[in-house]
Amino acid sequence: MRQAGRYMPEYRALREKYSLIEICKTPELALEVTLQPLKFGFDAAILFADILLLLEPMGAPFDFVKGQGPVVHEPIRTRAQIEKLRVCDPEEGLAYVLEAVRLIRSELDGKTPLIGFSGAPFTIASYLIEGGKSANYRLTKQMMWSEPEAWQMLMRKVSEVVRRYLRAQVEAGAQAVQLFDSWIGSLSPADYEAHVQPFVREILQDVMTLGVPVLHFGTITSTLLEAQRDAGGTVIGVDWRIPLDQAWNRIGHDYAIQGNMDPLLLCAPPEVAVARAREVMRLAAGRPGHIFNLGHGIIPQTPPDTVKAVIEAVHAYTHEG
Amino acid sequence: MRQAGRYMPEYRALREKYSLIEICKTPELALEVTLQPLKFGFDAAILFADILLLLEPMGAPFDFVKGQGPVVHEPIRTRAQIEKLRVCDPEEGLAYVLEAVRLIRSELDGKTPLIGFSGAPFTIASYLIEGGKSANYRLTKQMMWSEPEAWQMLMRKVSEVVRRYLRAQVEAGAQAVQLFDSWIGSLSPADYEAHVQPFVREILQDVMTLGVPVLHFGTITSTLLEAQRDAGGTVIGVDWRIPLDQAWNRIGHDYAIQGNMDPLLLCAPPEVAVARAREVMRLAAGRPGHIFNLGHGIIPQTPPDTVKAVIEAVHAYTHEG
Repeated sequence: MRQAGRYMPEYRALREKYSLIEICKTPELALEVTLQPLKFGFDAAILFADILLLLEPMGAPFDFVKGQGPVVHEPIRTRAQIEKLRVCDPEEGLAYVLEAVRLIRSELDGKTPLIGFSGAPFTIASYLIEGGKSANYRLTKQMMWSEPEAWQMLMRKVSEVVRRYLRAQVEAGAQAVQLFDSWIGSLSPADYEAHVQPFVREILQDVMTLGVPVLHFGTITSTLLEAQRDAGGTVIGVDWRIPLDQAWNRIGHDYAIQGNMDPLLLCAPPEVAVARAREVMRLAAGRPGHIFNLGHGIIPQTPPDTVKAVIEAVHAYTHEG
Repeated sequence: MRQAGRYMPEYRALREKYSLIEICKTPELALEVTLQPLKFGFDAAILFADILLLLEPMGAPFDFVKGQGPVVHEPIRTRAQIEKLRVCDPEEGLAYVLEAVRLIRSELDGKTPLIGFSGAPFTIASYLIEGGKSANYRLTKQMMWSEPEAWQMLMRKVSEVVRRYLRAQVEAGAQAVQLFDSWIGSLSPADYEAHVQPFVREILQDVMTLGVPVLHFGTITSTLLEAQRDAGGTVIGVDWRIPLDQAWNRIGHDYAIQGNMDPLLLCAPPEVAVARAREVMRLAAGRPGHIFNLGHGIIPQTPPDTVKAVIEAVHAYTHEG
């Protein structure tokens, strides 16, 4: 879960020379940043990329603006704009990501598996429509409720790009892929099922045929877990708002589960973080199919030593068990 | 739920002459704004005030800064600062609110009941510690996990002020009171139960002895409902992330329930908003003890006509039923 990043001095040093986008677009730099956190002992490497990279080849370029986050130059709010969006081929518009995947795989081969990822259609659509982050997804929900045909056209286009993109990452060598539907927790279960789930299902049912683990992640999903599972994925990612055992019982033990420590705990005293990591492990009860992780992204203020302490504690717990 | 406010032209006109704080501090203006939305046919009036008013008499003054929201001049981050916070008497530091309650009651008497409210200790503490809104409550959670004694001292002081404040509102004439724990959804159930619930319980168990309905509200609470109910309140407020019938089954039908339409639906076409309001009513199934409401605050961009249409639809449904 956003393993690499602003909490690591090595990453910050690199970011003084290159923008985030430059790192993503330069396979050698993406490789370097992908490998940085492995010194902590993670069991897998996560491709360094950004969920919004696909906006540019779709015809909706954006920039990261300091203090604001991503800003889409021309937010997508009309049917005419949606019609113009390109259902791009990742081999063209996102070739640099696939090149990074190949490079990282050749570097890691035989040691650590590589996880690729993409943003999910609702989350991507919300950035396209709002033009950036949103507190309430007003314009996104308005399109969803007011212009169902435009909404479906947008979701279909984004979904097809996401499907091709995840497929291409696996074909380039990613040994697992994750779909990040980070903002679905803003929706009622009825809206998720009516306006989002069908598109996620189309992506995941296809990607699952590739035979690699497919992780399906969201936040604030305590009432969406069954619907997420039914949409697809072999591993369901859950956040800290639900005890891991309850979540797993609801999803079903035929599925793997990923989670679910509050990422802010990494800013607590290390002994508190370690105790709470052990509590997550205790709730997983040694069942096969639990991937220990945070419930959402690691924050920049996280002390790297606490990350290391938690990873060691998780490994130690596994060996005790 | 924030009935009055920026979606009403009458309110915006008044705000051109007075700041939000000035309106809160002038009982005649608070009366005027409290009455404004009643033209839509609401079944109760909600006191116009702000959950942060108690910060000033506690010794932590703040301002509303345009584009930023509330900004506490000196955020509370040390034990020494917590020691200095005053457990004020509402009759002194918040006399203007109590005066507004008396004025509104004398104006409304025999017609519409008046609901008072306060922010809950976690929500208030988060503003005190962060100094304003927060995306991740890092400093709040850090104090909670790193300095349990400081945290408890802060929560005890805030809770005692909140308890006195709600009591004073009822004594001044409020016919029901609501406790807003808007941000508890950022906590895991374990953290809520360990670090927040005991303080909420002390407030609510006392206020419930006054014999008025006590509404206990939060958002993103799908996994906290039982713990919230056990802390107290005669009515539990729920947001749109859980179907109303599921929430009510979990809370138990001995309790009343308030909710739970997505407030963004008021920005959808009126026929969509009305259909979804009727769906909430259908899930309530005509049981006594359902208070139709939004799942969180009404947003400024809401068209007043849609508010009116939804209220009419809810009343019509009740009469059909």
